Amino acid sequence: MKLEGYSIIGSQRGAGAGGTWQAKNPATGEELETVFHGENEEGVNQAVALAEEAFATFGEAEGKVRAELLRAIAEEIDAVEEEIVPRMMAESALPEPRCRGEKGRTVGQLRMFADLVEEGSWVDARIDLAQPDRAPIPKPDLRSMQRSIGPVAVFCASNFPLAFSVAGGDTASALAAGCPVIVRAHSAHPGTAEIVGKAVQAAVAKCGLPEGVFSLIFDDGIELGTALAKHPGIKAIGFTGSRAGGRALMDVAAAREVPIPVYAEMSSINPIFVLPGAMAERGAQIAEGLVGSVSLGVGQFCTSPGLVFTTGEGSDDFAAKVAEGLGAVAPATMLHEGIAKNYCNGVSKMSSQEGVEQIASVDSSGCQAGPAVFQTKVSEFLSNENLSAEVFGPATLLVNCDSDVDYLAAAESLEGQLTASVHGTEEDLKAAGPLLSLLSRRAGRLIVNGFPTGVDVCPSMVHGGPYPATSDGSSSSVGTRAIGRFTRSVSWQGMPEHLLPAELQSSNPLGIWRLVDGQLSKEPV
Amino acid sequence: MKLEGYSIIGSQRGAGAGGTWQAKNPATGEELETVFHGENEEGVNQAVALAEEAFATFGEAEGKVRAELLRAIAEEIDAVEEEIVPRMMAESALPEPRCRGEKGRTVGQLRMFADLVEEGSWVDARIDLAQPDRAPIPKPDLRSMQRSIGPVAVFCASNFPLAFSVAGGDTASALAAGCPVIVRAHSAHPGTAEIVGKAVQAAVAKCGLPEGVFSLIFDDGIELGTALAKHPGIKAIGFTGSRAGGRALMDVAAAREVPIPVYAEMSSINPIFVLPGAMAERGAQIAEGLVGSVSLGVGQFCTSPGLVFTTGEGSDDFAAKVAEGLGAVAPATMLHEGIAKNYCNGVSKMSSQEGVEQIASVDSSGCQAGPAVFQTKVSEFLSNENLSAEVFGPATLLVNCDSDVDYLAAAESLEGQLTASVHGTEEDLKAAGPLLSLLSRRAGRLIVNGFPTGVDVCPSMVHGGPYPATSDGSSSSVGTRAIGRFTRSVSWQGMPEHLLPAELQSSNPLGIWRLVDGQLSKEPV
Repeated sequence: MKLEGYSIIGSQRGAGAGGTWQAKNPATGEELETVFHGENEEGVNQAVALAEEAFATFGEAEGKVRAELLRAIAEEIDAVEEEIVPRMMAESALPEPRCRGEKGRTVGQLRMFADLVEEGSWVDARIDLAQPDRAPIPKPDLRSMQRSIGPVAVFCASNFPLAFSVAGGDTASALAAGCPVIVRAHSAHPGTAEIVGKAVQAAVAKCGLPEGVFSLIFDDGIELGTALAKHPGIKAIGFTGSRAGGRALMDVAAAREVPIPVYAEMSSINPIFVLPGAMAERGAQIAEGLVGSVSLGVGQFCTSPGLVFTTGEGSDDFAAKVAEGLGAVAPATMLHEGIAKNYCNGVSKMSSQEGVEQIASVDSSGCQAGPAVFQTKVSEFLSNENLSAEVFGPATLLVNCDSDVDYLAAAESLEGQLTASVHGTEEDLKAAGPLLSLLSRRAGRLIVNGFPTGVDVCPSMVHGGPYPATSDGSSSSVGTRAIGRFTRSVSWQGMPEHLLPAELQSSNPLGIWRLVDGQLSKEPV
Repeated sequence: MKLEGYSIIGSQRGAGAGGTWQAKNPATGEELETVFHGENEEGVNQAVALAEEAFATFGEAEGKVRAELLRAIAEEIDAVEEEIVPRMMAESALPEPRCRGEKGRTVGQLRMFADLVEEGSWVDARIDLAQPDRAPIPKPDLRSMQRSIGPVAVFCASNFPLAFSVAGGDTASALAAGCPVIVRAHSAHPGTAEIVGKAVQAAVAKCGLPEGVFSLIFDDGIELGTALAKHPGIKAIGFTGSRAGGRALMDVAAAREVPIPVYAEMSSINPIFVLPGAMAERGAQIAEGLVGSVSLGVGQFCTSPGLVFTTGEGSDDFAAKVAEGLGAVAPATMLHEGIAKNYCNGVSKMSSQEGVEQIASVDSSGCQAGPAVFQTKVSEFLSNENLSAEVFGPATLLVNCDSDVDYLAAAESLEGQLTASVHGTEEDLKAAGPLLSLLSRRAGRLIVNGFPTGVDVCPSMVHGGPYPATSDGSSSSVGTRAIGRFTRSVSWQGMPEHLLPAELQSSNPLGIWRLVDGQLSKEPV
């Protein structure tokens, strides 16, 4: 497939009346072929108009129709894997196994949501039967379920060119819910975006769905993203990226005449607490695990552990081992210049903080980044908020504490996090109740004796946490819970049987779980 | 019980260092006994500090503990019914049966949430078991559920001195979720607030819970409400009131360093569409129902129908009948001067709109308000947005359409609504699919052959709708769904059995429904 370099507006090619640019190979600095043409606001308006039109039918399409679409998208993506992988590698410097793995995750997510909406119980159907004889007033027949919220704008993540981009988790969950999606491509990997965008466009056409179910907008600046977020036709936003970018979108959305929800996954330093027994018993092993987790993917995961609290016997050896391990990791190419530059700035700022010692340093230059390990004392950590700033990349800060009593104060001082991890022996953990409780209030996922990188895609995953980890700390952007972000509750009172959605019809034609007069059941009523 | 006139800060009386005022009887204009003392920001800070302290334990208290509290509150309120009713009548001019009914609803809501959290399945517990042999990487044991979000600020509604005030729906659902609550009393009914606040305070003490679980703040201005909404310790807001008030809170919450969710129930004109067959067949009967619904409680319900679309044979008779019926309703006392004044202004503004004819008018003066019926044509309605402004009180606007084809354009033009109602014969409804679909995208509750007033408190109720009906159109402030507003998802990975919340322990000690490896089950794992 030859790349064209234009936005996808429903079934059409965008006019490309905005600015142009070429993607760059971050490993070589070379410009990659194909000039990409940014869209202008007219293109955004067209895409939203098509999405609104599509919503009228797609928003009420049966679950199996949406499942078919999601599976068709997965098939189309599978079919172009050999086109995706080289372009993705060139645009992101991610190694081939990671690209193939991420493709697997992407189609896996699409199929997971297909299964979810085909089965159908996710809608939380509720039926309260009429009680005409109830005193003082009769009870009406009332039924409710989750319905799609409307057209959704999705912003591609730089660090997941597939799994959190054009047909990634946000898009999959929004389409699963019945929401048309308009994606704003990331300017660093537009070629990957186009290949996947064409796959989605083809799937929409094959399924005979309205073209407005999907559009893909190219833009080399931030104007069109802002225009999308402000457009009255957009009803929710999915975003994965920086804290500044996410907050800017939140502010735009909150200032609209009709405010809309923003689901932004933004910033997390993913603290790890090593309890004293575990440190004494297997500090070296934990250090080894940490080295792997910090350096994985050049530290470019939102769950990369940037902060480790240590104490007790073995802490010094632990620090030495972490420094040795990460110090021996060769520099590797980051996703793009901007990320690499931010990383270098972050490392430089951290190393200049009073009371912070850099105990491992691998040279970084251009897009090449090497790990950095810092060390400080808990008193410094608690008195200097710069020490809890996110340094996105393979850096981590070890905070030495006098005892694990300090852990509570340290945990108390933390902002909202995607994850928090605790390493402990059985004995350690017995005494760690207050710490575990506190961390469950600070983070979306609490990990015992493991590392935060590796986010399983399953029903019980919570990938989200209190602000600034995410804009909406009550939701998850990974796993089946993610669909709930793009729905609203709707109830029908006294509605004739045949006009009800299938999920709420008395005979339960879909055979789903429903809450009938307060009891879960698959029975007809 | 003698009223004291001071805020309740945990187990203590507030300092009352703010301004003072007395409640007024809207029926007589007389000041009611007891001087109320507003709090100052220090009092707010104390209440939030206590709430944060309480949250550390109450937020993780077992469901049965929270159920006990909710039932104890209901009992305490039942015990002071004879003190509540006269004071509530004097402060609100609501008639005795309504006051007693609202008390019944209030304790009913408390007990409904008690049952919900005692049973426990509402937490949406999910368990994905470990798969140590999974390739390429082992799957960890991951479990998740809903947890309380933190201290919640609740703003009392003027139109529900009990059911949406101190121990009303927002408070009940927040406490049920495990969130300490700080209530900001409405200045129009402080005596009712104090009696109920003391009941809650007593229940907290009887249950041996931390005092910070509940506080009640008096204030005669808006400063303390704003201070509460800005306080970093507050994690969510529940509000029922005007669109301006709700939007102001939304803006304050969105501008915080750490933004928080606002659940504001604000503004709705609750359109009714009378289809031609129903108009011909039983227009008179529908008119009679409308008269009852509009005049109920002097129109002071958020679900009061302020807009009725009519067409076809019988429309003129319908209008005459509505005018006659509402024109014969005697003026009645509104909740307070401010509401009555706004009503008069709204009526006056509506009557001055071009193309609008007032076909029934009952004199209003002071706090006394009489119904008003207006009539216009759909062309006027579509071209003048003043005609869809909410006039809170017993007013309604009949919009005559050339045919029910106009209904679609009219529905399309509507802002978000709490409810939308359609009256139709079987034949009418068969042809009304597009209208019903469209209305389900504009409103939280769609009613067929019924009237919107009367909001049943049950699992399937959705009392919420797209903005400006509510700030968050995905949730409900009535019924068991309301608890979800005050929770967040938390997951535990690799957590030892005995450190997991009971809801997620393998043996399922609470016997709740859980999603285990994607299947709903009550079985142990």
